[in-house]
Amino acid sequence: MNREPKTLRPFFEPRSIAIIGARRKPGFGFGLPLFLERQGFGSKLFLVTPTPGALHGRPVYAKLDELPEPADLGLVLVPAPATPEVLAACARSGPRHLILENAGFAETGPEGAALEDRCRGLVKEFGLRVIGPNCVGVVNTANRFATTEVIPECLVPGAVGIIAQSGVFGNILLDWLPEERVRISKAVTIGNRLDVDECDLLDYLAEDPATRVITLYLEGAKDGPRLLAALKSATAKKPVVILKSGRTEAGKRATASHTGSLSGEDEVYEAVFAQAGAIRAGSVQELFDLAQTLATQPRLFGNRVGVVTSSGSLGALVIDACLDQGLVAATLSEETVARVRKEAPDWMNVKNPLDVGPSGQFKVALSALLNDANVDGVIAIPVVPFSAIRSFEPLGLTAGLWIGEIQKIWEAAGRKKPLVVGVVGSAGWVERIRALCGEKVPVLRAPEHAARALQALLKQKT
Amino acid sequence: MNREPKTLRPFFEPRSIAIIGARRKPGFGFGLPLFLERQGFGSKLFLVTPTPGALHGRPVYAKLDELPEPADLGLVLVPAPATPEVLAACARSGPRHLILENAGFAETGPEGAALEDRCRGLVKEFGLRVIGPNCVGVVNTANRFATTEVIPECLVPGAVGIIAQSGVFGNILLDWLPEERVRISKAVTIGNRLDVDECDLLDYLAEDPATRVITLYLEGAKDGPRLLAALKSATAKKPVVILKSGRTEAGKRATASHTGSLSGEDEVYEAVFAQAGAIRAGSVQELFDLAQTLATQPRLFGNRVGVVTSSGSLGALVIDACLDQGLVAATLSEETVARVRKEAPDWMNVKNPLDVGPSGQFKVALSALLNDANVDGVIAIPVVPFSAIRSFEPLGLTAGLWIGEIQKIWEAAGRKKPLVVGVVGSAGWVERIRALCGEKVPVLRAPEHAARALQALLKQKT
Repeated sequence: MNREPKTLRPFFEPRSIAIIGARRKPGFGFGLPLFLERQGFGSKLFLVTPTPGALHGRPVYAKLDELPEPADLGLVLVPAPATPEVLAACARSGPRHLILENAGFAETGPEGAALEDRCRGLVKEFGLRVIGPNCVGVVNTANRFATTEVIPECLVPGAVGIIAQSGVFGNILLDWLPEERVRISKAVTIGNRLDVDECDLLDYLAEDPATRVITLYLEGAKDGPRLLAALKSATAKKPVVILKSGRTEAGKRATASHTGSLSGEDEVYEAVFAQAGAIRAGSVQELFDLAQTLATQPRLFGNRVGVVTSSGSLGALVIDACLDQGLVAATLSEETVARVRKEAPDWMNVKNPLDVGPSGQFKVALSALLNDANVDGVIAIPVVPFSAIRSFEPLGLTAGLWIGEIQKIWEAAGRKKPLVVGVVGSAGWVERIRALCGEKVPVLRAPEHAARALQALLKQKT
Repeated sequence: MNREPKTLRPFFEPRSIAIIGARRKPGFGFGLPLFLERQGFGSKLFLVTPTPGALHGRPVYAKLDELPEPADLGLVLVPAPATPEVLAACARSGPRHLILENAGFAETGPEGAALEDRCRGLVKEFGLRVIGPNCVGVVNTANRFATTEVIPECLVPGAVGIIAQSGVFGNILLDWLPEERVRISKAVTIGNRLDVDECDLLDYLAEDPATRVITLYLEGAKDGPRLLAALKSATAKKPVVILKSGRTEAGKRATASHTGSLSGEDEVYEAVFAQAGAIRAGSVQELFDLAQTLATQPRLFGNRVGVVTSSGSLGALVIDACLDQGLVAATLSEETVARVRKEAPDWMNVKNPLDVGPSGQFKVALSALLNDANVDGVIAIPVVPFSAIRSFEPLGLTAGLWIGEIQKIWEAAGRKKPLVVGVVGSAGWVERIRALCGEKVPVLRAPEHAARALQALLKQKT
C-alpha cells in the first residue's frame, strides 16, 4: 500500500496494477490485460472479477484482499453503480490510487451526479486518490505504461505533457500526435474530476523533468482562483498551452453534459490565461503546432523575423501573420544580402521575405538568415511542385539537394535561434520535408501558425 | 489564326500549340513538350527555337511563320528581353493567344517594369491576348490540358475553378488538392497580369458550365471598381471564395516585388468582398475546405445546425465555432430524440450536439439528424481511437460498420441538406473516413472549418 496518498506518482509509475472489472467478453476489460502484458506489466498485473476461473491464462481474484500482494494502482472498469463498493474495498486493502475508467456519472444526469457525489465523499473519507471517472487514464512514455490501449507510435518518449478533460479526445490526440511529430512525456485524461483535477496535474507536470511544455484541453475549470494559481506556478517553470471549448453559451451546454462540468464565462478564462502567462490555442492543429515548437526550439529573444521561401505568395501570407502577432520583418544585414546575392540569379530579389523561387538557393538563404545578427527567429516555407520532385528524384536531385538538410543547417548555425518550418502541398512533399527537419525542427502544417509559434517562443518566460 | 481575340477559350482549349523557346537542356522548356505529348497534344504541338535540329524526335522551327499551320496558343519560354520580338512575330503570323511563362519583368525592379510596360503596349497595339508573365499558365481537366507539368491526380475533373496570382502557389495548390479531394474544373495562374487579369477570369469562369465554385488567390487588385463589378456579377451565378495576402504593410511590400503589383488597403478589400457577396478564407486550408463544401453540397436554407459526434469535446468546439458564425444549435425534434433513444445505452445524452460516444449509434444519429425537420444542416465528427480500429478490423468490425457509410446515408436522406464531415486523428483514420464519404460529402481537416463551411452555404445566393 502506498504510504503517500498525496503523491500522483503511482498513477504514472505503478509497481503493481489491479484491473478491477476485467471481463471475459470482448470489450475494454477484455483487451486491457493483454495490452498491459504486451507493455511489460504482466508480472505486476492482477485481475479482479467476481466470476471465478482464469482469464487470458491468468488467475482471477474475486476480491481485492485476495491478491497475493497489494496493488498500488487500480484500474476500475465495473459498472458505475458498483463503484462505491470498490472504493470501500480499496480503503480496506488497497490500492489507494485508482483510475475510474467507467462512465455513468454526472455526465448522464441527476442520478449519475448523485452517485458521483457519493463517490467523492467516500474518496475523501478514505483518503484515496482518484482520476476519472469517465476517462481513459494516463500514458507515461518513459516506462511505456498506459491505462488504455494506444498505438505504439505514440509511446516514443518526448517533451510534451498532455492534460485532457475528455477521454475520447485524449485518445484521438494520442493517435494523431505521432504523425504530427509531437512526442509526449506523459498524458492524462481527467474526465469528471471526482478528485484529481487539472490543477493537481499542472503542479505535477510542472515538476516533471521529462516534460518541457504542458498542453491542456479544458472544458471548464473546477476552481477558477486555484487554476490561476496553478497556471502561474507552472508557467514560471515551463510554457503552458491551452485549448478551451465552451466559449459560447451553446458550447457550454454541450460540455455540461459531456463531462459533467459547467464552463465558465469565456472572458474570465481569457483574462485568467493572460494573467497567468499561458498561451491559448485557437484550434487542435494550432495546439499541436505550438506544442511541437515549444518542445524543440529555444526562446525567441527579439521580434525580428526572417522568412525564406520558394513561394512569394506564402511568404506574403506569413509576413501578414507575423505582423498580426506583433512580430516584425527583419531588415537583412549587408552580409546576408551579399552572401545570398553572390549565387543568386538576376531575377531574385534579396530582401525579407526572401523568395528564392526555383533558384536552388534555399539552403544558402536559410543558413544566411540563421546567422544574421539582425534576425531573431526564422520561418522557412520550402515548396517545390511535386511533379518536379517526381521527375528529378530518379536523376538524383532529391528534396535534400534542392532545399537543404534543414536540421543540419540549423544545428550548424548553433541552434541559437528558433527555426520553424511551414509546409503545404502533397503528402509526399510533406513527408520529404519532415525527413529533412528530423526530430529537432518543427514542421507546421499551416504556414500561418508559424508566426503564432514564434510569438509563443517570444512570450515564453523561461 | 483565331478570329476572336477577345475570347479566352484558346487558353483552355487550344487546337494547336507552339512552344516558343523549347530547350535542349533539362529545364522547363525541355520537359514541357514531353508532358504535352503525354497529355495527348503531340499532334498539335510545334516547337520553336532558334538553333536548328530535332528535339525529342520532333522537327523544330526557327520562326513562327515557318510552322506548317498557324498555332492558336503560344507558350512563351524565351528570356524576358526577347519577349517584344516574340510578340511582334505573333502579331504577324499568330498565335494571338499567348501565355508568358518567363520571368524577369516588373517583379525584378525598374528595368523589368519598363520591359513589361513596353510589352503591354505591344500586346494592346497588336490586339493579342496574354496571360502572364511570371506564371505557369492554365489547367483544364476536361481535356487534360495543362501548360505546366502537373501530377496526373489533379486532372480528375471536378467543379472548382481556381484563379491564382502566383505561379508557384498555383502549382502547390494543384499538388495538394487531390489529397484534399478538391477536384478542379479549370485553374489559371495570372502572374504579372500584363493583359488578362482576375476580372477577365472571373467573367470567364462565371460562365463556365464545368465550374460550380470559383476560388481566387489575390495579392492585390489591378482595378478595384472593376474587381467589385466582376465579383458581383460572378457571385450572382456561383459562389466565389477569396484568399487575399498583403493584409499588412510588410505583407504588401512582400507581394509588391513578388508579382510586381501593389496591394491595396485591407479594409477596402474587406468591404469590396462583403459588398460583392464573396467569401473570404482565412487560410489555405480554409480555402480548400470551403471550396470542397461549396462544390458538393446544396445551399443551407436556415441557420439550425445538428452535430453528431463520438467526441463530446469536439462537439463542444464545433458548437462554439457555429455560434461564432451566426449559426445556432438546432433543438432536435421529438421523432429524432425517440429514434436515437430507442437503441441508445443509458449513459448517452440525446441532445444537440449528439455525442454517441462508443455506443455504435453514429449512423442512426446521423440519419435521424438529416431527416429532422428542425435541422437545416448537419456536421458530423466521427472519431474512434485508432488502436480500436486496428484491433477490430481483422475481426470484421470496420470503420464503415462502426460509423456508417456516410455518403450513402446522406443520399438516402435525399441530399436535401448540407452535410459536412470534420475529421481529426491519424492518417489511417482520415483515410477510412474519406472512403466512407466518397466524392460527394466534404471531409474537412479542421472541425472548426465545418461551421465556416455551413455559413458559406447559408450565405450563398444561388
